[in-house]
Amino acid sequence: MGVHEECGVLGVWAPEPVDVAHMAYRGLFALQHRGQESCGIVVNDDGVFVSHKDLGLVGESFSASTLKAMPRASMAIGHVRYGTTGASSRKNCQPIEVNHQKGRMAIAHNGNLSNASALRDALELEGAIFHTTSDTETIAYVVTRKRLTSSSIEEALSAAMGVLEGAYSLVLMSPRKLICARDRHGFRPLCYGRTDEGAYVIASESCALAAVGARFVRDVEPGEILVFGDGGPASRREHCRTKEKRTCIFEHIYFARPDSVIDGVSVQDARLRAGRILAEEHPVSADIVVGVPDSGLAAALGYAQASGISYSIGLVKNGYVGRTFISPGQGSRVDKVSMKLAAVEQSVSGKSVVLVDDSIVRGTTCARIVRLLRDAGAKEVHMRVSAPPFLHPCHYGTDIDSRDNLIACRLPVEGIAVEIGADSLGYLPVSRLGELIGGQGFCSACFDGRYPTAVPDDVRRDRYERRFSEVDLEGR
Amino acid sequence: MGVHEECGVLGVWAPEPVDVAHMAYRGLFALQHRGQESCGIVVNDDGVFVSHKDLGLVGESFSASTLKAMPRASMAIGHVRYGTTGASSRKNCQPIEVNHQKGRMAIAHNGNLSNASALRDALELEGAIFHTTSDTETIAYVVTRKRLTSSSIEEALSAAMGVLEGAYSLVLMSPRKLICARDRHGFRPLCYGRTDEGAYVIASESCALAAVGARFVRDVEPGEILVFGDGGPASRREHCRTKEKRTCIFEHIYFARPDSVIDGVSVQDARLRAGRILAEEHPVSADIVVGVPDSGLAAALGYAQASGISYSIGLVKNGYVGRTFISPGQGSRVDKVSMKLAAVEQSVSGKSVVLVDDSIVRGTTCARIVRLLRDAGAKEVHMRVSAPPFLHPCHYGTDIDSRDNLIACRLPVEGIAVEIGADSLGYLPVSRLGELIGGQGFCSACFDGRYPTAVPDDVRRDRYERRFSEVDLEGR
Amino acid sequence: MGVHEECGVLGVWAPEPVDVAHMAYRGLFALQHRGQESCGIVVNDDGVFVSHKDLGLVGESFSASTLKAMPRASMAIGHVRYGTTGASSRKNCQPIEVNHQKGRMAIAHNGNLSNASALRDALELEGAIFHTTSDTETIAYVVTRKRLTSSSIEEALSAAMGVLEGAYSLVLMSPRKLICARDRHGFRPLCYGRTDEGAYVIASESCALAAVGARFVRDVEPGEILVFGDGGPASRREHCRTKEKRTCIFEHIYFARPDSVIDGVSVQDARLRAGRILAEEHPVSADIVVGVPDSGLAAALGYAQASGISYSIGLVKNGYVGRTFISPGQGSRVDKVSMKLAAVEQSVSGKSVVLVDDSIVRGTTCARIVRLLRDAGAKEVHMRVSAPPFLHPCHYGTDIDSRDNLIACRLPVEGIAVEIGADSLGYLPVSRLGELIGGQGFCSACFDGRYPTAVPDDVRRDRYERRFSEVDLEGR
Amino acid sequence: MGVHEECGVLGVWAPEPVDVAHMAYRGLFALQHRGQESCGIVVNDDGVFVSHKDLGLVGESFSASTLKAMPRASMAIGHVRYGTTGASSRKNCQPIEVNHQKGRMAIAHNGNLSNASALRDALELEGAIFHTTSDTETIAYVVTRKRLTSSSIEEALSAAMGVLEGAYSLVLMSPRKLICARDRHGFRPLCYGRTDEGAYVIASESCALAAVGARFVRDVEPGEILVFGDGGPASRREHCRTKEKRTCIFEHIYFARPDSVIDGVSVQDARLRAGRILAEEHPVSADIVVGVPDSGLAAALGYAQASGISYSIGLVKNGYVGRTFISPGQGSRVDKVSMKLAAVEQSVSGKSVVLVDDSIVRGTTCARIVRLLRDAGAKEVHMRVSAPPFLHPCHYGTDIDSRDNLIACRLPVEGIAVEIGADSLGYLPVSRLGELIGGQGFCSACFDGRYPTAVPDDVRRDRYERRFSEVDLEGR
Repeated sequence: MGVHEECGVLGVWAPEPVDVAHMAYRGLFALQHRGQESCGIVVNDDGVFVSHKDLGLVGESFSASTLKAMPRASMAIGHVRYGTTGASSRKNCQPIEVNHQKGRMAIAHNGNLSNASALRDALELEGAIFHTTSDTETIAYVVTRKRLTSSSIEEALSAAMGVLEGAYSLVLMSPRKLICARDRHGFRPLCYGRTDEGAYVIASESCALAAVGARFVRDVEPGEILVFGDGGPASRREHCRTKEKRTCIFEHIYFARPDSVIDGVSVQDARLRAGRILAEEHPVSADIVVGVPDSGLAAALGYAQASGISYSIGLVKNGYVGRTFISPGQGSRVDKVSMKLAAVEQSVSGKSVVLVDDSIVRGTTCARIVRLLRDAGAKEVHMRVSAPPFLHPCHYGTDIDSRDNLIACRLPVEGIAVEIGADSLGYLPVSRLGELIGGQGFCSACFDGRYPTAVPDDVRRDRYERRFSEVDLEGR
Repeated sequence: MGVHEECGVLGVWAPEPVDVAHMAYRGLFALQHRGQESCGIVVNDDGVFVSHKDLGLVGESFSASTLKAMPRASMAIGHVRYGTTGASSRKNCQPIEVNHQKGRMAIAHNGNLSNASALRDALELEGAIFHTTSDTETIAYVVTRKRLTSSSIEEALSAAMGVLEGAYSLVLMSPRKLICARDRHGFRPLCYGRTDEGAYVIASESCALAAVGARFVRDVEPGEILVFGDGGPASRREHCRTKEKRTCIFEHIYFARPDSVIDGVSVQDARLRAGRILAEEHPVSADIVVGVPDSGLAAALGYAQASGISYSIGLVKNGYVGRTFISPGQGSRVDKVSMKLAAVEQSVSGKSVVLVDDSIVRGTTCARIVRLLRDAGAKEVHMRVSAPPFLHPCHYGTDIDSRDNLIACRLPVEGIAVEIGADSLGYLPVSRLGELIGGQGFCSACFDGRYPTAVPDDVRRDRYERRFSEVDLEGR
Repeated sequence: MGVHEECGVLGVWAPEPVDVAHMAYRGLFALQHRGQESCGIVVNDDGVFVSHKDLGLVGESFSASTLKAMPRASMAIGHVRYGTTGASSRKNCQPIEVNHQKGRMAIAHNGNLSNASALRDALELEGAIFHTTSDTETIAYVVTRKRLTSSSIEEALSAAMGVLEGAYSLVLMSPRKLICARDRHGFRPLCYGRTDEGAYVIASESCALAAVGARFVRDVEPGEILVFGDGGPASRREHCRTKEKRTCIFEHIYFARPDSVIDGVSVQDARLRAGRILAEEHPVSADIVVGVPDSGLAAALGYAQASGISYSIGLVKNGYVGRTFISPGQGSRVDKVSMKLAAVEQSVSGKSVVLVDDSIVRGTTCARIVRLLRDAGAKEVHMRVSAPPFLHPCHYGTDIDSRDNLIACRLPVEGIAVEIGADSLGYLPVSRLGELIGGQGFCSACFDGRYPTAVPDDVRRDRYERRFSEVDLEGR
Repeated sequence: MGVHEECGVLGVWAPEPVDVAHMAYRGLFALQHRGQESCGIVVNDDGVFVSHKDLGLVGESFSASTLKAMPRASMAIGHVRYGTTGASSRKNCQPIEVNHQKGRMAIAHNGNLSNASALRDALELEGAIFHTTSDTETIAYVVTRKRLTSSSIEEALSAAMGVLEGAYSLVLMSPRKLICARDRHGFRPLCYGRTDEGAYVIASESCALAAVGARFVRDVEPGEILVFGDGGPASRREHCRTKEKRTCIFEHIYFARPDSVIDGVSVQDARLRAGRILAEEHPVSADIVVGVPDSGLAAALGYAQASGISYSIGLVKNGYVGRTFISPGQGSRVDKVSMKLAAVEQSVSGKSVVLVDDSIVRGTTCARIVRLLRDAGAKEVHMRVSAPPFLHPCHYGTDIDSRDNLIACRLPVEGIAVEIGADSLGYLPVSRLGELIGGQGFCSACFDGRYPTAVPDDVRRDRYERRFSEVDLEGR
């Protein structure tokens, strides 16, 4: 898969000191699918911030002794991150911490500002120094500037939200308060829950609430600010309904965990529906329906149910390959895809197969999977994709391959079918995306190019990235 | 799961020097499910053995620079291991290497000798010193002793096989030869394949052949010795058909990968059949069938197909939890099971669910999963297990919990149902195990106590283990 | 020793791309005694900064592959650091790098600003966010602010030097220039040299020049800015001679390597002279003179030469103990001092010993050494110290213990002698410090409290440190 | 230096459980100069052996948590090792542990058997398998074989000593006993001491006794076996005085720590005497005497005292370089020697220098040091060496370079002087070696080729080493 979510955020507030570090740890485990490059937790021990951040998975980065060294406290925030910048990443680990005489804070952020470059340019010309390439630092800077003239941190955040454009679901912790906010379009999900003991948990996805022992209360609304404290969360709504709701539809198609419910819609249900729509739009006569594990399975089942074709387990995943596989030299027929996925010959041999996956980016992975099925004896392979073709970059926190690499930018559907080796190919139509979530109010700009905000032109972005042309060898 | 396979073995022979290290690496990746504690590869560089062994997964233990440092050569063997002994494990890493003036060799072994203790006692009284607690060293010792009076290494191996009892599928490499052998009962699987370039690959399971780019040729027969060389493999059959075939049936039920074919039987098919038998033996009126991912999915699908009840994805797995999760303190409702598996509320809420898994050991994991479904709103949970109850220890290489911990040793089926919280419970009957593989010739001693060989009494084993009461702190 | 230097800096400029990373590496090895907590190198590859910074010694932090990954280039700067802040140190690693649209730069700094707190307070109230507790970031901020209105980076640095007070010997690298500067008092040393190939090397001490293959050219003058480029270094002298020269005298007594020459004075000679002065001021009848290795040896030899008493090797050092020794529990007679130093019984038994060391801080180490000699049979131990008593904090980059811990703040000389168990005790008189370097123009504020600049009051400093009351668990 | 000691051993016996692990740790720190490649401790917790062994220095290999995990107990043994075999070294870490039904034991060994090859050949032909290339395993095998027919472990050890030839100072631990033994020639040192609490400590050198808090009692005699137990050590003397005493004279010249006393002779005194003999044998008119730190300092002081020429500190050592320095590419004037040692220009410029070191192996290091002095302005350099020229291999545990590399094997003294660039050169005469220790009874075979035992011919050794031609990549 060449498409990546960039982050997951988490916050915990408890009425009295408890093991918030372990709660955050469990919550981040449940959000791990949203970012595998780095992770971090900051515990607020009565005004002292105790933090641990590292490259790697939650399970690699946090040892028992690290968790034990974190104090029992009443607040913590956490973050998992998928980074786009490669090498120089340790300093981009979140949550970021700001020490300032007007107030210390820690921030964790999911999303992408569409006016980040413009904001940074202006701040630098006033003398600001940025240490990272992350939007989160820009948010921190804007909030801190607003703080100089605000009566409270939430006041400063609200003022900042008038300036920040694009996607941001964030949790923010000051010495005394835990605050969360979701941008005015609501691009990225954010919700909160409550434990039986009265603790509140904020998370990017509802699947993390259960992991922390909390019950889902509700989604944070687009534009809403919630301040957690003894009387329960206080809602500030001055930015609510000031913009159209534009939830990222690809959260439902691919990013989110199937057991999450986002803005009232079950992710698993959305995927089953996508499969059913595919069966209606692109019917075919075949023997079995096979999903690409794990994210294609629900759509495959939906297709099977709607079409009456047998659901089959025709591909199995080797869960141990992951990030670590070292590819053999060129020319080998064995690559990472064929190590990670294997066709079950007994299931597919001699069969006409409907193959269901959630997306096609460059087409290379897809071609490999089609080949696996054919090598195992599949007579025909009919590819069905539970999303429309990717045609445009995302400016709101999804890392999609460059347009030069997107197969749908260079080829029509028939050409893609030929290139991936499929007997037929069908995408989910853009026009039926709304059925997945039973309504409108979503962003599908990566499919149709209709951006809800102004977006930066490429020249500016390039110039900006060049400025940060440094290399940190730390990971070597 | 409290049941573990103990090992996977791999061997590569090529007509001329190639990157056998990377071939072995890919093969071990495909066998990783057979052992996650340690792994190792020994390359035979024209008589010089170059090895790397380490604790951890293949992907953790082998770096690009390690693989690059291994020479192109015409032979290599590899091993993945699940260890039962806990701490002192680095020296138990395989393949083990023996340097002796009568011939150097490296051995990788899957299985367990049933007369290991008796053989070691006798060898020690002749002055032998053992460095590990592993059966493999006993095999190495017996082969080396036989080597003193044999004209070739395969002669020595054949002589040793007259003495070794129990389970052993092994690959053995001398400076000039690659040899494999399977014990006379054929407890553990072993097969080989061939690449287009004329290289031979030996593997515990056929799924590893594809990973190395080889096509399946055939299973190694019980009692057979194969010597690989320029003219293709030479078979020695003096031990073939001297004992009854007794393949481990639990390989099909749980251990092996679904895309493997063992002794002519597809593992996936065996599991689908197990599900269908369960539907016949333990029918129930329900809304959906849910399998425990990943090993219960095929049996669940078989149950759904035979019963006509809808197959559903009611449980999803968090692939990131694995070995590293640090449990919270006592009293938490959140544990490793609930972090690793999540119920999909939208799928199970208000439903009567048939839950299919491959085995019940202590019952605690099973009880947690039933609870997950009920917490997600399942109206009824009917547990179906695609194996009979575990009642006896395995002496042939499977690590089953002690009898004190096996729930089926203390409770009748109804009692187990109560303890795990299920509305009903049905096991696969022992009498129908043969249908899974379409015939007889299997070992089901862990279910019925009918051991194909003499087995050691417990007193002897205990005395022996006490002798090795040492602790190595290396991993700290 | 409870007194620590805080840093060493290094810069390399070459007329064409060479292996500047390895040059910097060698130079930092030679400056390792100035800071053992962290180190870093930034290479300037035609405007792209490639950096590696890590906690630990140079030899631990830089592997062959790290060095190899750094490009051949024409500029590099490096840093070794002794940190005072304990845990949260990785982000304090230097050189620090600043990315700003008005110009990227990397800075390495040795010293301490005496007006750092005041500068930070003012910058924060204008909206600045600081990421570290290091003065170097304050310098970077001031330079960047000045850069907004300056025509060049050296112009900005010069403007900044009008604001920065206290000690700073620094090297600064922009995409096109290598610049160094020494504060107006010249508290910390800084010099440069030239290789036969025309490369220039800037270093805290002359001993590092030889390590990089350069010959000493001259010391950088207090207040001087040097800009390195094709025509050789260009000197800016607008801040020269605007303040009195105040070189730290403790560099000669303890910090610097004996083979360094600082501002024209050999460190080894200064120490021999200190020994001779001690012999004149505090003569005693004894059998042998013993120096505490390694920094007390030269003064001991000077004492022996002036007094005519035999020089003897009465203490030997275990070079392997270092930072890693884990102390046994309380009550043990064996501690780190006794592991690191051992008395040579054959040399001291039955002898009256003059023991020479460079300083006494708390007195505990000194007492342990006296005890070692007595345990080895020394009849008398006469302590001679080649520095005056420590009585005041340093605000210019030396980490001296708090006044509460300084033995000379609580006891008169006779009392100290009793506490350390010496038969007599003599310090170098403050009045004769000038003789060590053959002139005036030095800072001896830690001995006499005469600070060359205004110094921060303690209340302010405390408030400031509290603001940064965060804990980073990364090292665990 | 191209000459290496191979090991140091340590043992602790206490009347009741104490922190023997930390005692062993401290003792190994004091023996670190005898071996820096690997180290290990085995604690005997009432019959259970708890061990930790690792590559690296004691301070790197043992963390606080490792030490804490080792139980309080009444016995422990430890080892530091310098390995000659390069890569495959982890399994050669000592102490080695043997598990055998006739008795478990752990052994740590310093020295080298001169009949190791012959013993191994014979044992293998009886079916033994060796896992390491270390002599210690041969000792373990011989003791275990003898154990089959002996009434006690010390009986077995005594029987083994009738067969083992060459150098071995060893400590051996059974579940109930701590035993030490020194070979019949007494090649390597071994002594023991006692703490005030009644614990006994065995060590290769007396310097380690103080580190553990013990007072020296006496040296173990050549051929003596000591069994430690409640009544104090019991001595078995059946092998005493069966061979001539042949203590390694190079222990005094270079290996041992100057504060150790071996067989009644102070190492520091022996070195001072060596310097005095050099002054008598090779007088010269010069301005100063400079020793190469640290092992040449005492001989330099002896030379200065006897000649009346001033002792000077003309070379200083960078204690941080050690094993980790990465050399620049070929052609650099800067190498490891010049990083590790620096000449003090102020001390040597314009002077005629007597340079004293303990040995010359290949001559390259020596030539570099002479060059350092000349580059610093020395007018003349007169080299004096406190040992005779190396001409022969050592078969008793010292790793001397191959004869092809020994400069004294290819050149006469005058030729060596030219090659190292010295104005004159003088070695300690073989005929006066006895004066260093005030008597005879020493081995000087590396200087004069007079081996006290039969020695293996080279052909045999080569054949044997080839058999173990394996490579372990673990360290990569």
